[in-house]
Amino acid sequence: MYEDRIKLPQLREKLMGADEAAAFVKAGMTLGFSGFTAVGYPKLIPGAIAARGEAGNLTVLAGASAGDELDGALARAGLVAYRSPFNVSKDLRSGINSGKIGYTDQHLGQLPGMVWSGNFGKIDIAIIECCGILENGEIIPTLSVGASNTFVQCADKVLLELNLSHPLDICGIHDIYTVGKRPCLRPIPVCSAGDRAGSVGIPCPPEKIVGIVVSEVPDQQPRFAPPGPVSDSIAAHIIELLRSEIKAGRLPADFTMQSGFGAVANAVLYALDSDEFGKLNMYTEVVQDGALELILKGRIAKASATSLSLSFEGRRRFYENLPLLKDRFVLRPQDVSNSAEVISRLGVVAMNTAVEVDIYGNVNSTHIMGSSMMNGIGGSGDFARNGLLSIFMTPSVAKDGKISAIVPMVSHTDHTEHDVDIIVTEYGLADLRGKTPAQRAGIIIENCSHPDYRPLLREYLEKAKGKANALHTPHDLEKALSWHRRYLDTGSMK
Amino acid sequence: MYEDRIKLPQLREKLMGADEAAAFVKAGMTLGFSGFTAVGYPKLIPGAIAARGEAGNLTVLAGASAGDELDGALARAGLVAYRSPFNVSKDLRSGINSGKIGYTDQHLGQLPGMVWSGNFGKIDIAIIECCGILENGEIIPTLSVGASNTFVQCADKVLLELNLSHPLDICGIHDIYTVGKRPCLRPIPVCSAGDRAGSVGIPCPPEKIVGIVVSEVPDQQPRFAPPGPVSDSIAAHIIELLRSEIKAGRLPADFTMQSGFGAVANAVLYALDSDEFGKLNMYTEVVQDGALELILKGRIAKASATSLSLSFEGRRRFYENLPLLKDRFVLRPQDVSNSAEVISRLGVVAMNTAVEVDIYGNVNSTHIMGSSMMNGIGGSGDFARNGLLSIFMTPSVAKDGKISAIVPMVSHTDHTEHDVDIIVTEYGLADLRGKTPAQRAGIIIENCSHPDYRPLLREYLEKAKGKANALHTPHDLEKALSWHRRYLDTGSMK
Repeated sequence: MYEDRIKLPQLREKLMGADEAAAFVKAGMTLGFSGFTAVGYPKLIPGAIAARGEAGNLTVLAGASAGDELDGALARAGLVAYRSPFNVSKDLRSGINSGKIGYTDQHLGQLPGMVWSGNFGKIDIAIIECCGILENGEIIPTLSVGASNTFVQCADKVLLELNLSHPLDICGIHDIYTVGKRPCLRPIPVCSAGDRAGSVGIPCPPEKIVGIVVSEVPDQQPRFAPPGPVSDSIAAHIIELLRSEIKAGRLPADFTMQSGFGAVANAVLYALDSDEFGKLNMYTEVVQDGALELILKGRIAKASATSLSLSFEGRRRFYENLPLLKDRFVLRPQDVSNSAEVISRLGVVAMNTAVEVDIYGNVNSTHIMGSSMMNGIGGSGDFARNGLLSIFMTPSVAKDGKISAIVPMVSHTDHTEHDVDIIVTEYGLADLRGKTPAQRAGIIIENCSHPDYRPLLREYLEKAKGKANALHTPHDLEKALSWHRRYLDTGSMK
Repeated sequence: MYEDRIKLPQLREKLMGADEAAAFVKAGMTLGFSGFTAVGYPKLIPGAIAARGEAGNLTVLAGASAGDELDGALARAGLVAYRSPFNVSKDLRSGINSGKIGYTDQHLGQLPGMVWSGNFGKIDIAIIECCGILENGEIIPTLSVGASNTFVQCADKVLLELNLSHPLDICGIHDIYTVGKRPCLRPIPVCSAGDRAGSVGIPCPPEKIVGIVVSEVPDQQPRFAPPGPVSDSIAAHIIELLRSEIKAGRLPADFTMQSGFGAVANAVLYALDSDEFGKLNMYTEVVQDGALELILKGRIAKASATSLSLSFEGRRRFYENLPLLKDRFVLRPQDVSNSAEVISRLGVVAMNTAVEVDIYGNVNSTHIMGSSMMNGIGGSGDFARNGLLSIFMTPSVAKDGKISAIVPMVSHTDHTEHDVDIIVTEYGLADLRGKTPAQRAGIIIENCSHPDYRPLLREYLEKAKGKANALHTPHDLEKALSWHRRYLDTGSMK
């Protein structure tokens, strides 16, 4: 009886099919979707928009990326003129890199503020997946919050996708604190990972809701990169660093961490499951299966995220332990989960993945060979810039050794030398804190680069000292980007 | 009777000459100096250290840059091994760019946190200019706070320079709130420019103070770049932008601004002195004469800074109006004046100067032709990254037109495309908010570049589209840095 999930009776009249809902969407509109990663995005209405095929030239915003039923479907239908702030869809990416789809890659923590400020113009329709609507009109999100509260508040109209694959019992896991339009002139009242400051659902005047579509489509399962010796080795270097930071008194034993995605993050979490470390806290964007297990075990005392990206088995474990998790886990809007203010206050240990790093510690997180967009900066800047310890990790090479992740000069800068504390590859770790550019170059080349590229990097640096106009950050501007050019010309940086 | 300024009688026994104080400084030590710009730095002890000439290999920290009696004297004596986080001294710069002096260029707002975290190791001696010591042992700074509270708290020993050129009546203008070691787990209790949250002086256990040197040397006068048509034109574009932002409801009429240095900042302040704008607020690093006048007039309701950099006449006006100013003006530590948390909360309009900007909106604030350090990033990143509106301004050309400030690719990135909202030159303004890289390139070239370079930029962009591996951010990696190479080879980018 899905009607039970709509506690405001007058809203039951708004139930309709996906095609009817999709008819609200007109060409040239700006749409704000729920969803952060392939979690919590509407799955039927986008497909219906694509099937109708009438509403082209759309501006598509979501919390971050979204699943294929949204980003893929709209991109393949040729309806997307512009997308922000993040993407992982191969169809979107292909449109972006062929110049057919406009894309602005943005700090995820700052997206809601930009919407409030009107950087994207008016939001015509917010299209939000939910698992229920309360008596007071609050909309209960599913397993991500993202920018949904912002889109609902800023949009002219709201379309809901009521997803029955989630129990309404998850009500209470979310903490909807709306930062709102700046200047906000008050602190964000979150002083530890588990603090709650807002409402259980997204406030919304009922008259704004123009349609409700019922869905039972579950979120996709995230794809995990398999673990291997490279990711294990990177994780081991990070664990050794955390151990020595705690020993030196620079990091509390119960520190708060941002957890990344994939194999390295999982290997780090696995190693943190030890009495050697205190009860940890997690303040991050996305919680995945590995972190969920540590939360259930009590090894992580409190955790905060804006999205819960779980396998089917992880989701079962989550539902099974809901009462416990409501005490230990909070799902927040992304301008709180990724807030500079809160990340700085909690002294978060930030761990993010680099596409490439240069010898002076600048990091490229987004562009392949300077021009081609991969996914986007995501929340890496929110955490790296404001965390207590900013770690960037990458395998030393890619494409079977044809690409070095350590280069003379990055072909695009997303994180400047000022914001990067630690570089880690499977070969070792470079601690850049308080170091001069010359010192950084030495330890990045010697500790982190792949042995095949190490002599070439040393040679670049030596020659740069002779060619540069100064020795503070010596570059040979003729050769600085030559590795990337060589790769484009020959298929290898060697 | 300067003894009156030392309210703790036992500290009067610590009075000594500068040479005796300088004898505490040994080779290899790490020194934390008061001072932020050429304001509030000790003026006699550094000269005495230089004259003794025994203490080489020093690590020299201050809030930002310092005056010539400190940075110049120690650099000329060859005693500085390492300097952070900012410099404007020609002797220091020459040592940095010749590779003789190590230098780490850092966000000024983050320096205190780095000191607390031990990034520079132990602080051996804090050397602090003050105008008095209270009964409770609090040290009253002069006209800057900078990182003095952090250095005093983290150092083994403290040397004071009691400067009689400032009246002790300035006690009460400072608000010493210590953020301290992260994680700090509490909000910074500043919710408007005028809020006070700390003590009037810097707390210090009296036994830490090992020497007090009396000085009467005033701060230098800041050098102003003279106004001219270029700075007037840049300021006019900024005023027009502020006007339209207020009209569109994106900015409150009583907005809070960061004011930069020099001619453009003065021209902007001059234009803001109009009934068209509300009573403004200022949350900035450094307040100069122009802003002081607006504060005295009441046109700026409340102002906050970490340094008060005034002409001799401005200083006279300041002292004359102290009671009024204690109500309207606050001098704070730099981790509060430049705090990401507070800047974001107040929705500050950030205005900073760029060295060069590329067609996609990346900004270089620090390096000449990629390798040579000019001054440093200063607080520009603190404000640009966290402000509500991030404006970068630059004349379109430098060196009589031989250098274009708009280039295909910046030779060093300090502010990424994600953190730059507005570019302004004397030719016009490019509003990059929500724009794709392709759109940004169009408006930066057409609105901001110098007409002599505009066809060359258009040509670069067109050819890059043919050469790049993708059209999201098309670059021709062979030519991207060729303008800088041409300048180094021929003395002109043309």
